[in-house]
Amino acid sequence: MELRKRLEENRFNQYVQVLEWEGGLPIAVKDVIDVKGARTTAGSRVMEYVAEEDSSVVRRLKRAGFTPIAKANTHEFAIGATNTSSRFGPTRNPRDPSRITGGSSGGSAAAVAAGDVELALGTDTGGSIRIPAALCGVYGFKPTFGRVSRNGVVPMAWSLDHVGFIGRDLKLIVEAYKASKGYDSKDPSTTLNLSVPEKDRKYRRVGLIREMTEGTEVEKEFMKFVDKLSSTLEVEYVSLQDKGWSEARFVIAAVEAAAYHSKFLPERETLYFPDVISFLRMGMGLRGVDYVNAQRIRSEAVSYLSRIFKSFDLLICPTVKVRPPLLEEVLGKEVEWRVRLVSNTAPFNLTGNPALSVPINEMVGAQMVADLGEDLSLLEFVINTLGARSI
Amino acid sequence: MELRKRLEENRFNQYVQVLEWEGGLPIAVKDVIDVKGARTTAGSRVMEYVAEEDSSVVRRLKRAGFTPIAKANTHEFAIGATNTSSRFGPTRNPRDPSRITGGSSGGSAAAVAAGDVELALGTDTGGSIRIPAALCGVYGFKPTFGRVSRNGVVPMAWSLDHVGFIGRDLKLIVEAYKASKGYDSKDPSTTLNLSVPEKDRKYRRVGLIREMTEGTEVEKEFMKFVDKLSSTLEVEYVSLQDKGWSEARFVIAAVEAAAYHSKFLPERETLYFPDVISFLRMGMGLRGVDYVNAQRIRSEAVSYLSRIFKSFDLLICPTVKVRPPLLEEVLGKEVEWRVRLVSNTAPFNLTGNPALSVPINEMVGAQMVADLGEDLSLLEFVINTLGARSI
Repeated sequence: MELRKRLEENRFNQYVQVLEWEGGLPIAVKDVIDVKGARTTAGSRVMEYVAEEDSSVVRRLKRAGFTPIAKANTHEFAIGATNTSSRFGPTRNPRDPSRITGGSSGGSAAAVAAGDVELALGTDTGGSIRIPAALCGVYGFKPTFGRVSRNGVVPMAWSLDHVGFIGRDLKLIVEAYKASKGYDSKDPSTTLNLSVPEKDRKYRRVGLIREMTEGTEVEKEFMKFVDKLSSTLEVEYVSLQDKGWSEARFVIAAVEAAAYHSKFLPERETLYFPDVISFLRMGMGLRGVDYVNAQRIRSEAVSYLSRIFKSFDLLICPTVKVRPPLLEEVLGKEVEWRVRLVSNTAPFNLTGNPALSVPINEMVGAQMVADLGEDLSLLEFVINTLGARSI
Repeated sequence: MELRKRLEENRFNQYVQVLEWEGGLPIAVKDVIDVKGARTTAGSRVMEYVAEEDSSVVRRLKRAGFTPIAKANTHEFAIGATNTSSRFGPTRNPRDPSRITGGSSGGSAAAVAAGDVELALGTDTGGSIRIPAALCGVYGFKPTFGRVSRNGVVPMAWSLDHVGFIGRDLKLIVEAYKASKGYDSKDPSTTLNLSVPEKDRKYRRVGLIREMTEGTEVEKEFMKFVDKLSSTLEVEYVSLQDKGWSEARFVIAAVEAAAYHSKFLPERETLYFPDVISFLRMGMGLRGVDYVNAQRIRSEAVSYLSRIFKSFDLLICPTVKVRPPLLEEVLGKEVEWRVRLVSNTAPFNLTGNPALSVPINEMVGAQMVADLGEDLSLLEFVINTLGARSI
């Protein structure tokens, strides 16, 4: 079979396991998300298991006609933005195999960018869906926090983890999102589906986030994209005045990840990649008070942003401030690159807003952020304004 | 005016400030809850301010015809269960002034037990409403977490704090609860009003919590009360198999309290009472991972209890395992007494369930715990089964 051969060829090291395909629309599934009967490794030597059940999101997608046909490579335990630290080796960018895909859902983005599948599942704790989508020139969509169940997903940081979609056709992303979302008693965060209804808005006033745009490596091509939008929308500069948001997200992520991994530590400490274990050690050392203060900053960020969305309908900025670096530039410098790659995406994990990366060219994306609960509204706006299919 | 004289007499040191009364049903308000124009001190030398606005709960109660006429004494910052560490001195039990009221809403309970007011507002983070209600022989009701806004309330531990009611007439508590509850944009926890609707249940199967009853000092009088219930209900022993719940609640409370108080520390460290500062120091020393693990245990406790409520309609046990000790037994031993006094109440702060202390005699209470959202159902059950007015 043509598809199976392509998957097994695994040209960009985007797959860690190829599954049986028995019809349905083929999708790739990041290897932190359980597919019944398939091995879950999270790209790590620390643990692996064969999933006895589908994760809730996979079960819902199967019911809607989607079929997992491969488990996709990931940065170890989704703790990293370069997709280079994986027991299966780094993923390479289909647009230029000497470059990284970004991550941690790099395998999922590469699967789509390589043209193997139309849709892939990923997770996003600081940008892990949007970053590789941008660097591989495809769409990446992180829904409102709590919209899609994380049951059956290896956690990175439970209060920041989102499950979402990477694809080349926004209409398919809409379909998959609709099939996936909703309350799931196995993931308490999904009670938000009950309290925050899907909201609709007519987008007119766009806030261009100054500090996430000006002086970046991709400013020129991004501003050309903004010019196109300006013909139909009012675009105005805005500053988010990040008062420790990035720091707060980092503290929350590190502590929550450390809490999950304490079951493997210190026994399996040497099995982790150096950049990953250094992150976990940091989390181990943080105080409870630091964590609670970070959560307080988080609630301030949430209300600040909800006020911003009274003046603006939509926020935009480049998804990533830089173009994908060469693999050789990254190896040994995963931590520095992680910090650089997540700066524009991570604030919206803290606040939980829906965020979409729209490909501008083969390796640059524009991030569009909407108010909480405006997931479908955002997706439909982009379909109507820019079209549904990317390059 | 008769009432004003009684309040100013302040026989049990239950008040810290007497307010103007201009009609309406008089209520006492624990001195951690803001009343516009009145001073808030939280019973502490560490801070005080004159409230510029009513707390949300006071605003709603005023609208329903209730009028604050006194601020009630509290254990310093509500961190304690004996009501002895207050800058205004210990509160004394109106049933026997040589004994403590319990706390930290001890002033509120004493105001009701002394017959000055029919209703008082309190807060409950580990039992602070139910404990003094039991030890002073009146009703104490802690609603489902998130039902009543904490906006304008000095926090003890934000994920465990509940605002609730102490009174002698359950019908008045029902009225005050109905007037107070509901979504408040100023307290994010109240979104639960949207996702967890008020539920109704016919109570038939009662679970008598074995480890919270057997061998306690009050077992005999409590079991007589149970015998009365047994004539109309099926009562059966049950064990909650507390797997670190009390420890988890302690960790969460200490860390969250320490995070709030870090703005006063270390500068004002010497102004705190010794038992309170030792609690805060403990919280300062705990790790982020300890806190997150405690939250994980908490979510297990919540699901364990929701399964229990499939087999049982109601859980009961003594509110407090002991009778109120003499004030002189407590001074200098506040920490030991706190641990002893909260053991039966604190687990239901962790889980957020509605819990009512029903007076059995002048100094012993029975705690009744219902499933999440069954606040009115629980109150009405007790009114119909045991009557609305206490001793």
